[in-house]
Parts: sequence; C-alpha cells; structure tokens
Amino acid sequence: MTSIRNEGPLQQSVLVNAQIATMGPSATPYGLIEGGAVAIENNKVTWCGPLADMPQPFEPWRQRNLEGRLVTPALVDCHTHIVHAGNRAKEFEMRLNGATYEDIARAGGGIVSTVTATRAASEDELFASAAPRVEDLIAEGVCTLEIKSGYGLDFETELKMLRVARRIGAHYPIRVRTTFLGAHATPEAYKGYDDRYIDEVCIPALEAAQAEGLVDAVDGFCESIGFTPDQIKRVFSKAKDLGLPVKLHAEQLSNLGGAALAAHYNALSADHLEYLDDAGVSAMARSGTIPVLLPSAYYFLRDTQPPPIQSFRDAGLPMAIATDCNPGSSPMTSLLLAMNMACTLFRMTPEEALAGTTRNAAAALGLKDTGIIAPGFRADLAIWNAQHPAELSYGIGINCLHDRIFGGAV
Amino acid sequence: MTSIRNEGPLQQSVLVNAQIATMGPSATPYGLIEGGAVAIENNKVTWCGPLADMPQPFEPWRQRNLEGRLVTPALVDCHTHIVHAGNRAKEFEMRLNGATYEDIARAGGGIVSTVTATRAASEDELFASAAPRVEDLIAEGVCTLEIKSGYGLDFETELKMLRVARRIGAHYPIRVRTTFLGAHATPEAYKGYDDRYIDEVCIPALEAAQAEGLVDAVDGFCESIGFTPDQIKRVFSKAKDLGLPVKLHAEQLSNLGGAALAAHYNALSADHLEYLDDAGVSAMARSGTIPVLLPSAYYFLRDTQPPPIQSFRDAGLPMAIATDCNPGSSPMTSLLLAMNMACTLFRMTPEEALAGTTRNAAAALGLKDTGIIAPGFRADLAIWNAQHPAELSYGIGINCLHDRIFGGAV
Ligand SMILES: [Zn+2]
Ligand SMILES: [Zn+2]
Repeated sequence: MTSIRNEGPLQQSVLVNAQIATMGPSATPYGLIEGGAVAIENNKVTWCGPLADMPQPFEPWRQRNLEGRLVTPALVDCHTHIVHAGNRAKEFEMRLNGATYEDIARAGGGIVSTVTATRAASEDELFASAAPRVEDLIAEGVCTLEIKSGYGLDFETELKMLRVARRIGAHYPIRVRTTFLGAHATPEAYKGYDDRYIDEVCIPALEAAQAEGLVDAVDGFCESIGFTPDQIKRVFSKAKDLGLPVKLHAEQLSNLGGAALAAHYNALSADHLEYLDDAGVSAMARSGTIPVLLPSAYYFLRDTQPPPIQSFRDAGLPMAIATDCNPGSSPMTSLLLAMNMACTLFRMTPEEALAGTTRNAAAALGLKDTGIIAPGFRADLAIWNAQHPAELSYGIGINCLHDRIFGGAV
Repeated sequence: MTSIRNEGPLQQSVLVNAQIATMGPSATPYGLIEGGAVAIENNKVTWCGPLADMPQPFEPWRQRNLEGRLVTPALVDCHTHIVHAGNRAKEFEMRLNGATYEDIARAGGGIVSTVTATRAASEDELFASAAPRVEDLIAEGVCTLEIKSGYGLDFETELKMLRVARRIGAHYPIRVRTTFLGAHATPEAYKGYDDRYIDEVCIPALEAAQAEGLVDAVDGFCESIGFTPDQIKRVFSKAKDLGLPVKLHAEQLSNLGGAALAAHYNALSADHLEYLDDAGVSAMARSGTIPVLLPSAYYFLRDTQPPPIQSFRDAGLPMAIATDCNPGSSPMTSLLLAMNMACTLFRMTPEEALAGTTRNAAAALGLKDTGIIAPGFRADLAIWNAQHPAELSYGIGINCLHDRIFGGAV
C-alpha cells in the first residue's frame, strides 16, 4: 500500500463520528474523545472536541464521516538509519549457523559491509533502496521521519546520504528530519586513529553538510565499540558552534555516561539506554533530554537488560519509541511493531507506547507542531480501523491503518 | 495489498530469470537454482531447473521474466485460530497496567470474552472480521491456511466457525484446511464437568461437523488448564472412528505427555512443545509427527523455555512454523515475522525457517502436493523482491512479496 502524493491541502473540512485519541494534556487516558470531530483548515487543526460541542462556524464545512473509527496523531519515527545500501541477511544466516564474529568479519560482514555498499551506491540507488522502507512507514500512518547518515564514514558519502534523506522528504508526503551521524564508527582506513577520523573527516563533513543545508541535528555513537565521551564532546562542541541540536546513541551495551554527557549539551534525546544508571536518568530529567527507546534492536540482539522504564516514569521523563530501522540490528520498518515490542518486552503500557510514537517522538525531534491533535497543530493524522487506541500496541505488527492525513491532505 | 481473485489458470507458461529456492531434496541449501526457470501447465509445475537446461518443448511457452527475483514455494500457515470475533486489547492493556488474572477474569477477559463474542457474531460478521487477517497472509504469499474452531465451545458455534473457514477457502484464492478444536477449553456452563463437556458437546459437534463435510482434522488442547490426556484420548478415538487425522496442542506450559499421546494416534503434528522431553521427541520421531513451533505465542506470553530445537534436529524431525494467529496469545498475521522470531528467539536457521513455512508446514497438514517446487506439485509460488532466501527470515516482518501464484494463476 503506497500512500498517494499530497494533492494539495483541503481548504476546510471536518472529520466527524470519530474516536479521537488527541494525546494532548487531559484527565482522560489518551485524551480520548468519543463521538468526536476534528476541524481542519489548510494544513492545520482548528478545532477538536465532541461533535455536540462543535461551534457553529464549522458546521457548513465539508464533513467526512469516519463511522466510529479511531483517529490519532500521525506517527513519528524519531530514530532511523533508513538510508543505506545492501542488507545483512548473509551475516544473520552465518551467525545462526554457528559462525563467530571473527568468521563474519573475515567474510566482510558487519558494519563494514553496509559502509562498502553505501559508498558504492549512487544517490539514485540509495533512494531506490530506501523507497520501499519509507513506503512501509507511510502505509502505517507515519508523517514525520528522522533519518541519520553514518554509513559513509567519509566526506562524500556522509553528504550523499543526507542528500538522499532530503530527497525522500521532497518526493514523499512525509516530513524528514536529518541527523548527521559521522561519529557512528571508525572506518577501516582510520582504525586505531579515531581522533584523527573525528578531526579529518567527521568535523569537516559536518561543516560542509551544514553549509549545504543538509543537517537538522547531530548524533554520535558513544560506546566502547564506538567513540569515547571525549571524542563525542568535540563533535558536540562543533554542533553547538554551528547552532545545531544534538542527540546521542548512549548506554546501549555498557555505561560510559553518554546520556549525562548528552544532557550536559542539552541534547534533544539520548537513545537506547539499556545500561543507563540513576545518575544518568537525573541528568536527563534536569535537561529535559528525551529517552528514545528502541525495542527492536533489544529484540534482535537478544539483550536481556531492558532500559530503566520505571526510573523514567519516576523522573517524569516522557519516553519516545522508534524503529531504529537499520541493517545491522533492526531490519524492521514497522513502528506499530516497535510499539508492541515496547509493551511486550519493556512492559510499557499501550498509552505510553502511543505517546512514544506521537507526542514524545515529536519532542525528541524538537518539533512543537505535531504529535498532538489540538488547535494550531499540523493536521498530521492517522485514521485506523480500530475502536480503541490500545489495539495499535496489542497487535503484533498488524497494520489497521484506514487512511492518513498529511498536513491536511489525504 | 489484497491479492486478486484467481482468474483461471494460465494454460502454459514459464517463469524465467529467477533465483529458485525449490525447498526440495538437494545438496544445495534451499535447493537453490540460480538463473532458473519454472514451467507451469494449468495448475501444476511441469519442470524446474536452470534455464540453460530447459527442454525444448517448453521454449515456445509464454515466458515471464522475473528479472532475477527470488521464487519460493508459496507459504503455508499450518496453525491458526484466524476465525474469531473481537480482540483482547483491553485485557492486554489491563495486564500492562498491573491487573492480576483475577482482575481480568472479573472484567470478563480471557478466552471467555472471545467465546462470548464469537457466539454472538453471525457467520457474515465472523467472515468480515477474519477477512483482513486472511488478506494480510495472502499479501505475504500464503496459499494454504489451516483454520481451527474452538471459540464456540457449544454445538452451533463450533459448526459456525468451520462454515466460515470453508467460506474463506471458497471466497479467497487460498486453500483452507479446517480443524475441529472443540476440546480447546471447557465453557463456563460446564466448569468442573469437563468430561460431560467432552461427551455432551465436543463429540456430538465433531460428528455433526464431519457429517456436514466441515472437518479435515481434529485437534485438542492438552494442558492443566485444558484437557487431560484421558479426555483427549476419547476425542482422538472418535476422530479415528470418523477417519480423521489428529493433531494436538501439547507441552506448551507443562509436560503432560501430550506429544507422545498424539504420536500414539499417528498425529500429523504436535504443536507448541516448549516443555517436551526426550521421550516425547522419540515418540514423535517414531510416528513421524511433525513439531509445529509457534514463536509468536512464546514471544507474547514471555515464555523463557524454547522448544527443544536441537533434539528435533538430532532426531531428524522436520520442524514447521506457524503464526498461531489468535486473540489471546498471538494477535499476529505475519508468517514472515514468525520466521524471524523462530530464528531470533529459537535460533533456527533461515533455511529451517523457510522449510518450516513451506515443505514442513505442508507435511504438518498431510498435504503432499505443495510446499516444494518440483514437477507434479501445485504451482503455488511466491515471488519476492529479494536476492537470497535468507532475507525472508532476516527482516523483522518486512514483506517483500512481489507476486503470488496460486494453483498456476497470478
Ligand atoms: Zn541507531
Ligand atoms: Zn493454537
């Protein structure tokens, strides 16, 4: 199912006879409105509430009867590596046949294989390979998509990936937020010279990408197999100089204090966080850094330590959930499945899961105009063949999307 | 994506330029043929091999160029409860909000809620509620689908469910195999009188369903919360009297010796099997009873003991994999996701996973004409936008189906 191109916004219309999970501040779970209506003018919501309370000026607007269907904010996938070439099925198969990491490395597997394929691919090829993945997300009601670089690890390819990300946003009815992730891994040519890679490749590529208008945020991979906090600091300082917000892959496999470092730089988000400690939670709470949880990577890598969900709740930290779509640890293009995994594996509630892919995912991207159904917000809506929002998390990847509205257009 | 109706078989055609995973006996993994061709006459495969070896008589047949795509046998989902009314999202949400099983029972949850909804639904309503689930499977290349009764637990509703299952087979381009599962649970009205339920409801309903031509096999749920081996024996004896093959839900939560009992009755399959012991494996191996593994139920219920995969391998038992699609423990309609879960959670190989949803799933249903691409077999084929069959298991529920051929018809 491929969503059709935006044919231009409807001028004025009202969705009626809907169950509306506004996900806005409310005493009711999900901000649920039964028998609700949403008035849309151009690309924005102008009014939302029970139909019985709808002010008279909206009554003549063109009405669309949703026959009791559920309406939620459109979904937001706030952490993906969706632009990449090739896949790692061979490596997946080798491992299940008993191969060691050494065997796989010798066979050219691991991130190196994705970097090699991504460098070799043209912009057209990269776009074509990402297209079905983007279409899967659109077919699930996603209207906002974060896309990272980080499989180039050289000047040209990092920029190429970001150009493809921008092209996805121009081609499809979806809003793309790009993230520069030059500090994802050290390429073969710089093995043992991580600092030189940061200085000679990562930072110059970031400057060039920003000059070309390709960057909305800056990310890094802070891990024993990635970069040290000191190296990440240098990337973040440059980001600050350029006026760009930061975020960080942190505490996925061990605790290096990455989340606290990110919080120190007022990061939008810290992502993964399985090994986060209390000090890290407190630091994030002080800076308002959103925890982005990636349950499919946890599932695929067979991690056994879930992130500290209860600590996030206790600290009042809003949790976001994303697909982490990538060939190495999360070859998945279903945000609904990520919601089910967040509930099943992390014991989050369906309401937390939906907040995690709407309101809180928008916050993780620094967006203040989507993720909630309320006057003044973008009319980015998902209409579901469902009666209650818990059904979205309950199904194991079942897609019950009926229709999607992107900036007011069906 | 909904598959279109069978428009009648093509007379004679050849698929060319394909990677063919025949899944037949071969020294090559997956029975893989590179640069292969499949000749189809009416609803059957007449020839399959490398294009270079294709005999001359096939050369004038209409050719369809698959441009290097992967062809596998169509998928077979050999264990589902896909016909049912309602869903259990509310119960899922209650549990994640800390409700106990008692709380849920008091709120009318559990299997009782599905039984109540299924009894209340008309045949048309049951069909309509199953339709999107069936369409999901068809869109993933499934051509054969097993459907169980077992949410009626009264005479009329058990028959109604099977009639709906037959109707699905008549309406959609998919082959349906029905299974009578009256011995699924004891209904409220017979609580504490399991034996009377078996005698007064289950067996008479089985006889009536068989008289109406609604039954292809007979199943039971052998478990402390289901029926005892003695009760199952009485159902199986009746099945044997009626000339029907049997199968059993066995050793899912504990070891009651159900698989050995099933093997004693030459069961087609024993299903779940997390708690199966060596004696059970040996009994199954002696009778050729296929282990059907249901990793999504394992995932959803957060089981921690996987079935004895290595023992099945050692015993030479071919393993099948199914969705177990049902509202209580596997609200899932993706057989590809079940394959990924079999690899990720049970450490099966991608080749075992594909055999488990083709050749071995057909065997679990007693079908000898599908599940392999070879002369004389049905032309039930799946064409994938993939280069290697391992990709099907590697993606976390990513559907890369390009086209489906059902009995020779696209
Ligand atoms: Zn990531
Ligand atoms: Zn079952």
